[in-house]
Amino acid sequence: MHDPAMWKYLNEFLGTAILVLLGDGVVAGVLLKHSKAENGGWVVITLAWGLAVLMGIYVAGAVSGALMNPALTIGLALIGKLSWGLVPGFILAQMAGGFVGGVLVWLAYLPHWRATQDPGLKLAVFCTGPAIRHLPSNFLTEVIGTFVLAFGVLAIGSNAMAPGVSSLAVALMVVAIGMSLGGPTGYAINPARDIGPRLAHWVLPIAGKGSSDWGYAVVPAFGPVVGAILGALGFHLIYG
Amino acid sequence: MHDPAMWKYLNEFLGTAILVLLGDGVVAGVLLKHSKAENGGWVVITLAWGLAVLMGIYVAGAVSGALMNPALTIGLALIGKLSWGLVPGFILAQMAGGFVGGVLVWLAYLPHWRATQDPGLKLAVFCTGPAIRHLPSNFLTEVIGTFVLAFGVLAIGSNAMAPGVSSLAVALMVVAIGMSLGGPTGYAINPARDIGPRLAHWVLPIAGKGSSDWGYAVVPAFGPVVGAILGALGFHLIYG
Amino acid sequence: MHDPAMWKYLNEFLGTAILVLLGDGVVAGVLLKHSKAENGGWVVITLAWGLAVLMGIYVAGAVSGALMNPALTIGLALIGKLSWGLVPGFILAQMAGGFVGGVLVWLAYLPHWRATQDPGLKLAVFCTGPAIRHLPSNFLTEVIGTFVLAFGVLAIGSNAMAPGVSSLAVALMVVAIGMSLGGPTGYAINPARDIGPRLAHWVLPIAGKGSSDWGYAVVPAFGPVVGAILGALGFHLIYG
Amino acid sequence: MHDPAMWKYLNEFLGTAILVLLGDGVVAGVLLKHSKAENGGWVVITLAWGLAVLMGIYVAGAVSGALMNPALTIGLALIGKLSWGLVPGFILAQMAGGFVGGVLVWLAYLPHWRATQDPGLKLAVFCTGPAIRHLPSNFLTEVIGTFVLAFGVLAIGSNAMAPGVSSLAVALMVVAIGMSLGGPTGYAINPARDIGPRLAHWVLPIAGKGSSDWGYAVVPAFGPVVGAILGALGFHLIYG
Repeated sequence: MHDPAMWKYLNEFLGTAILVLLGDGVVAGVLLKHSKAENGGWVVITLAWGLAVLMGIYVAGAVSGALMNPALTIGLALIGKLSWGLVPGFILAQMAGGFVGGVLVWLAYLPHWRATQDPGLKLAVFCTGPAIRHLPSNFLTEVIGTFVLAFGVLAIGSNAMAPGVSSLAVALMVVAIGMSLGGPTGYAINPARDIGPRLAHWVLPIAGKGSSDWGYAVVPAFGPVVGAILGALGFHLIYG
Repeated sequence: MHDPAMWKYLNEFLGTAILVLLGDGVVAGVLLKHSKAENGGWVVITLAWGLAVLMGIYVAGAVSGALMNPALTIGLALIGKLSWGLVPGFILAQMAGGFVGGVLVWLAYLPHWRATQDPGLKLAVFCTGPAIRHLPSNFLTEVIGTFVLAFGVLAIGSNAMAPGVSSLAVALMVVAIGMSLGGPTGYAINPARDIGPRLAHWVLPIAGKGSSDWGYAVVPAFGPVVGAILGALGFHLIYG
Repeated sequence: MHDPAMWKYLNEFLGTAILVLLGDGVVAGVLLKHSKAENGGWVVITLAWGLAVLMGIYVAGAVSGALMNPALTIGLALIGKLSWGLVPGFILAQMAGGFVGGVLVWLAYLPHWRATQDPGLKLAVFCTGPAIRHLPSNFLTEVIGTFVLAFGVLAIGSNAMAPGVSSLAVALMVVAIGMSLGGPTGYAINPARDIGPRLAHWVLPIAGKGSSDWGYAVVPAFGPVVGAILGALGFHLIYG
Repeated sequence: MHDPAMWKYLNEFLGTAILVLLGDGVVAGVLLKHSKAENGGWVVITLAWGLAVLMGIYVAGAVSGALMNPALTIGLALIGKLSWGLVPGFILAQMAGGFVGGVLVWLAYLPHWRATQDPGLKLAVFCTGPAIRHLPSNFLTEVIGTFVLAFGVLAIGSNAMAPGVSSLAVALMVVAIGMSLGGPTGYAINPARDIGPRLAHWVLPIAGKGSSDWGYAVVPAFGPVVGAILGALGFHLIYG
């Protein structure tokens, strides 16, 4: 593991696994029957997703940049902040991390799958879905949310902050995007956070599970990529 | 864009656009039908508005001061912390940013306008309104809230903090004002946050929208100006 | 105002006024009828009280120490961290600040007093009351809460932190005390926060107000003093 | 008390006592009848437990490392970050702190025990219990949660942060674990937080108390130890 690229892939894998374990974990806690966090509400979900990003950053460490997000990875490569040669390995590691995070959530909440009737709730633990299904609009929402994410990450990086504060800033931004722009689609804003654990949902023997709704996956897979590209290019044009 | 003043106007425009996108976005999320954040409550609204200010600060950057608020702009000019020559451009840029932020919220929540019956809820996404309509009292509430904002911004600026911490302090102050003084009027405390997106509500083809209630606009337009002037002068007299 | 003692009294007055404006303000927001924050819940109340302390610290500044609390003032004087000669002026300034803060809350929520029927809710905006009335137990709860406050303030002061972080730590401690120990008595933990605005309730022409319940005032007036003395002495004996 | 080891034991005792006073205190506040925090919900419980850890860290100070957790103590000893000779004293001090914290919660909420009918709620104030009783699954949940805790503590320690920020990071991690992985078992992730106050529940004359459910204690006593060992070894192997 002394190869620098492999080391970064490992960082991205570990960070994304923790991100999805804690992120999908809070959805499990709030949605699954008999969970002590049941009905904890949107405030718990959005705060915990922000903290999930923070813990992912800590676990991934600074070497790889702790992107944990294929859309952000592509956006940063496009403006020269990441070598294109690393992009495939990053995306693979992030997707694998998302898958493993989903598996761990399944294990952590093992007795609660059978206790929960609605297969839609079980799917919602693993991946995003639209509040009102209209794919072009849902796609647009993901583009706007991820535009803010990419523009914001770059803006945070360009503000002077004491060590450790910018990680908090990124986590708070994810809370902000969730609270403010998460209503229509559940804010994927990250293909690895959606496709990785959707795969876990698809292959795992989850008690009483339903469809993995791959027909919607195009939105969380590509909407964030378009948004991150626009956000990164926009920031680069204005402040770059 | 190498003109320093134009650069600052751009900063203010971008910061206010993000501020209103995330700030009005959370109101959309909590109020509009079928949104996943529906009924998220006052804690979600006030936390997200604080975070919206924080993200606006990051996006605007430090050059213009990231005021994003015509009332604060006037207050600071009055005590010599901002050149009067910049004030018209700042206010115009902030208003334009507020308008664009409102348009983006409309787009991000596109399928939810038709799904929501009450036109009052749709207006509430874009701009403030009184809990109990009594314009002199509502005006007074906005004066008190913006007094705290202006006095507090100057107080925060005069406290020693590590880089990046004072932005957090400003965001937390906005959360505090919202939670504590937002009950009667929904705390405009910023004309650009109210008039900008109110204009967007007025011109946009929002499904099933009602009146833009311009009769109330005098309160969020001028109450904050009076409050910011009193707060800035008060701070200047005591600590200046 | 160039007298150093008078300057500190002014700091304490301003800080406590902001503390009680924002602290009692959130209770008004959550309890009074038609407020947009109505039923915001314990999370809003406790977070906002912590932020109220933070804003009080910023507004008071570092010169006086921003104690804003007669119990803490006495506790710190007892272990030699504050001159006894300043104590009467501190306490008077803090009480006056608490009174003015209460008046400002009355003004900020002016139309909501008539709209609210229950006089008990109106009193609860201004000062604390017991969940289950049993003065010895209520006294003990205030002793324990203020013990944690005084011990904690001194512990925070002895931990190395970057500039600006220890203010956040104090605010978070107040949130913690509120969430964890506020259930039985509403956590006065500060005579100025209770007696100052209780006086305001007593003298103000609040629409439909009831008794100011001075019979209970002994608990928030003296319980915190005992707790702060024990906390300050305890910290001094162990870590001093 | 000039013996360095005894000093560290005292630190651990004090920190854990504050941790459990504030941590179990919030559960009392949210669960016991007539408490002002009643029905405050999962967001209040999880935020306050994070803050309880933060206050424990401040009160314990930096000398002992403020572990306040036997599982973490063993995990760190195993990878050479703590002398094995200190481990028995640490664990004893942590357990004693947890017991004293539980006693203080009983006192702070004294009138509320009789007012609350359900003995299960009273036990839940002091120690954890499963949402769905299935000891192997409950054990696994505790292993996963404490794995994240131990891995995360070490990861946070290896990230560069300004003084005071890493304590906040640890507190936020505990909030994250609670929100995301606390649903099935109430996240003991710390034997001293469960066994110490469970002992207090067992011996105290709590009005109308029921069983102390020692049959479940094996899960919070040993699950966290396994998780912390795996987390510490995992971190050591990858990043050590």
